[in-house]
Amino acid sequence: MNEWKGIAASTGYALGKAYVLPEISYDPSKRQLNADEVEPEIRRFNEMVSLAAGDIRKLQESAAAENRDVQAAIFATHLSLLRDPEYIGEVTQRMQEEAINAEAALSEVTAELMDVFAAMDNDYLKERCSDLRDVSARIGAYLSGNGMAVPMEFPEPVIMIGMDLAPSLTAKLQPSQVAGFAVDIGGKTSHSAIIARSLGIPAVVGVVGISSCVQTGDFLIVDGHQGIILVNPPDEVQDTYRVLQLAETVRLAQYDRFRELSTVTADGHRVQLAINIANPQDALAVSKVGAEGIGLYRTEFLFMDRDRMPSEDEQYAAYKAAVLASGAEHPVIIRTLDVGGDKEIAYLQQAKESNPFLGYRAIRLCLGEENKAMFLTQLRAILRASQHGNVKLMYPMITTLQELRAANRLLAEAKAELRAQGESYNDQMEVGIMIEVPAAALIADQLAKEVDFFSIGTNDLVQYTMAADRMNEQVAYLTQPLHPAVLRLIDLVIRAAHGQGKWVGMCGEMAGHPDAIPVLLGLGLDEFSMSPAAVLPARELIAGLKREAMAKLAQEVLQLESAEDIENYVRAALHAR
Amino acid sequence: MNEWKGIAASTGYALGKAYVLPEISYDPSKRQLNADEVEPEIRRFNEMVSLAAGDIRKLQESAAAENRDVQAAIFATHLSLLRDPEYIGEVTQRMQEEAINAEAALSEVTAELMDVFAAMDNDYLKERCSDLRDVSARIGAYLSGNGMAVPMEFPEPVIMIGMDLAPSLTAKLQPSQVAGFAVDIGGKTSHSAIIARSLGIPAVVGVVGISSCVQTGDFLIVDGHQGIILVNPPDEVQDTYRVLQLAETVRLAQYDRFRELSTVTADGHRVQLAINIANPQDALAVSKVGAEGIGLYRTEFLFMDRDRMPSEDEQYAAYKAAVLASGAEHPVIIRTLDVGGDKEIAYLQQAKESNPFLGYRAIRLCLGEENKAMFLTQLRAILRASQHGNVKLMYPMITTLQELRAANRLLAEAKAELRAQGESYNDQMEVGIMIEVPAAALIADQLAKEVDFFSIGTNDLVQYTMAADRMNEQVAYLTQPLHPAVLRLIDLVIRAAHGQGKWVGMCGEMAGHPDAIPVLLGLGLDEFSMSPAAVLPARELIAGLKREAMAKLAQEVLQLESAEDIENYVRAALHAR
Repeated sequence: MNEWKGIAASTGYALGKAYVLPEISYDPSKRQLNADEVEPEIRRFNEMVSLAAGDIRKLQESAAAENRDVQAAIFATHLSLLRDPEYIGEVTQRMQEEAINAEAALSEVTAELMDVFAAMDNDYLKERCSDLRDVSARIGAYLSGNGMAVPMEFPEPVIMIGMDLAPSLTAKLQPSQVAGFAVDIGGKTSHSAIIARSLGIPAVVGVVGISSCVQTGDFLIVDGHQGIILVNPPDEVQDTYRVLQLAETVRLAQYDRFRELSTVTADGHRVQLAINIANPQDALAVSKVGAEGIGLYRTEFLFMDRDRMPSEDEQYAAYKAAVLASGAEHPVIIRTLDVGGDKEIAYLQQAKESNPFLGYRAIRLCLGEENKAMFLTQLRAILRASQHGNVKLMYPMITTLQELRAANRLLAEAKAELRAQGESYNDQMEVGIMIEVPAAALIADQLAKEVDFFSIGTNDLVQYTMAADRMNEQVAYLTQPLHPAVLRLIDLVIRAAHGQGKWVGMCGEMAGHPDAIPVLLGLGLDEFSMSPAAVLPARELIAGLKREAMAKLAQEVLQLESAEDIENYVRAALHAR
Repeated sequence: MNEWKGIAASTGYALGKAYVLPEISYDPSKRQLNADEVEPEIRRFNEMVSLAAGDIRKLQESAAAENRDVQAAIFATHLSLLRDPEYIGEVTQRMQEEAINAEAALSEVTAELMDVFAAMDNDYLKERCSDLRDVSARIGAYLSGNGMAVPMEFPEPVIMIGMDLAPSLTAKLQPSQVAGFAVDIGGKTSHSAIIARSLGIPAVVGVVGISSCVQTGDFLIVDGHQGIILVNPPDEVQDTYRVLQLAETVRLAQYDRFRELSTVTADGHRVQLAINIANPQDALAVSKVGAEGIGLYRTEFLFMDRDRMPSEDEQYAAYKAAVLASGAEHPVIIRTLDVGGDKEIAYLQQAKESNPFLGYRAIRLCLGEENKAMFLTQLRAILRASQHGNVKLMYPMITTLQELRAANRLLAEAKAELRAQGESYNDQMEVGIMIEVPAAALIADQLAKEVDFFSIGTNDLVQYTMAADRMNEQVAYLTQPLHPAVLRLIDLVIRAAHGQGKWVGMCGEMAGHPDAIPVLLGLGLDEFSMSPAAVLPARELIAGLKREAMAKLAQEVLQLESAEDIENYVRAALHAR
């Protein structure tokens, strides 16, 4: 047996046979071309770049459609590399100037750029090397006619081993095929680590040398808690790990008893646990995990990956399906179209923006005169779906009272149109807004008078409050949902709403996080909307908390000086129970 | 006489002779090329694009160096057009595919794209037409060998007339050469209108047809208040306008008597009026306008437009010069390097970011391990300058208490280095921070304990609070410094600072605005830092206000529902005095 130590990137234990990824390569030998061969060679290169771009675009679309944001962002980076004049432009220029073949020029330019990136004293830029390697391998594979095929179907789940997992490969990972993985390079925040956590696959990264020493077929254990890989361990070690693995499964299974219960604190305070969905079929998870409704239905996925916008009937059918799939008595909060920012829609005329997260997006775009017809269509479809269950409507990115009023004027217009057509809808449908812009949080007292509920979108609220793009690794240290500034805003919002007798939910990632739940409960949050997998652990956690004690805890942490202090304080308080 | 009516874009009256801009053109006739002529023609086209890009880059740099942000942004747009594969790429592709000359392909592709933009139901995209026209004319001028020369020196100031003022032309406008202008196209927020206001040149835009009906040499009057152009008016009308013009000059001159006074309200409350500068020589304006110091010295301009960073001695010389030029007794607040966002520096390794305003900028970048040496150098230079006057140090973009502490640790390190070298500095130099991130405003009570002062940077604070890029015209309606959300944050900051006995300044554009000053005074702001031109009007305004009454006014407006309501309320209250 030998033991390798790396960085624990994703928890859990995996046992299985190694599959060592083949190095994807192409032949970079230089050939001198005749003058009349240069043009056709450049054309061939450009065609292969187009094929590669087509591949990546497809990968990006499916990642976006399945709400795998991180993966979609990786492919966006790759597409921009393919458009970069300093990369692809430089390759064709070199072919032209030196009359050489595409493979040689591609290999040279890629190597030069990678040297530049690698020399930089900046982790973010260093990370770009793996993108370059991936993109160049993809083009090279097309040039050589070898294709990019890595078998992704195995008779039994494997432990994948490689220098790095190409981002395009991680996009295809399935827990049913890959039980765990270990790679030579990467850190806690590298692409592969992020993906591993999002898929729940145990993984260890930064295991320098492992890909050249392990062979396909070796028996491996991945210890994702300690960051250890064991190669061909003896039976007794395997047995020990099988016991650990079983214990973990049992621990996860204990949540099951909370499936049929409602969500109540130890001192009898009731809150709601809901789930976030992107498609009607996701609503089936409501009964699967025993959720109490849908706190956020992201309708934009119905609008993506198509040539024109969905018709009113098509939207109505989707919204109705979500309502029925959730069990008609559960609340279903349908958020109106939230595009722009990092979500592009081909058939909308969206201008390129220098700072799309601070741009023309969500309700801003829907209130634009040019999009009025589209927005009215969606409002009519949601209204029609409202007769089939407990539908609530929610506007995203509201910043001012005037935007809320403008949206409500259009809602009244949509209702009038439906009445004129004799269509029925629930005239009492609740209307709420996302609180995700600091301005909205700061005037929550004014907004609360004109809505039925708030839902706090912490991903954006944190991003704007801290002025830090949540997709930008260089400022990732500022993405702190538990920062006192963020908690103070949340406190302000909840107090403002309760002052008007309105309820407050939360549909950002924070709502399902065990460090945040005690504080949010203490601040008085009424509804927590999260990924289905987080519901039962959250219910168990809440069942063990007292509302009174958490209210005191929350007021205390508002005075602490950092997210880290708050996290430690909460953990210590819970541990002391 | 005939009279033209347009949109009043910039106030004031101008009288003078017309200079009608020649249409810049190139010959777009199509020539069919032989196969062997295509490559050289593409090469020629690419060279001319490079020359055009070089021009634009120079214009952009000088705009940036002179702090003309809007103009710099226009040129950035032009440069990105020159890199756009759907524009320039399409031109070369067409030359290749159809074997045609550059002028014909450029003209065709430009026209097609302009059609696409013009057809869009979106003012922002429509405005892109003038950028396309300008960029294509520039390349075309090079292709034709005609150059872009518009004479910009006239024996006496002219009234400029054209279809539109090319953005590259507006960048060269000088009030001493151009007394006013009128153009066929554009609206209140078109490039030319913005530039006119920033230069104080009377202008009327959207005067459809004027460029083809007025001749060079006609005598014109531009009424920038009413949006009227008079062509060859009779003497009595000219006389009337000369009187109006004189009255305006007198009105502006009355501010002069406030030059030697300090800034005191009618009930005896003293505040400070300071100016914002970008270069040491700007500090001379302190005595010119009777300011009470420098509220913001933007040091980044010392770092721009050069190949490597300025040495410690070079920085020391600049900072010392600013201190001496301001009159050594006046406070000079030197802000440490604020780059990133929209300000790039060639020799720093700045990654391309999807949302640079939410990215790795200002203090974030200076605290990065890779920039530590640079930041220490600046801190040492500022410390050394501190012995020559009343220097205060200020960190930009502080978001968390931990960042402030990290910066102060480096400051202590810089002091230790100077002591070791036997260099002297003022150990009591005050250290403050910009409050421009919502998080910092929300934890101002905690930050106030560890600083000597705050300066509120409203440009960024508004942008982040409203989540709206201040350079993005599509969300310009959300750039509302008087929005209740923004004022509530400012209120929070001032109360937190005063609670710790610390003073608060403001160095965003808002600090010099007559609608904002009464409210800010009422909220308790201690120092107002603005452009030199705004100082005397501000002092006159404040001399007529009572601190007590403004405090009451401020508390009232915090409860209003929109920036517009607040503006109207303030104006009514001041009018009622």
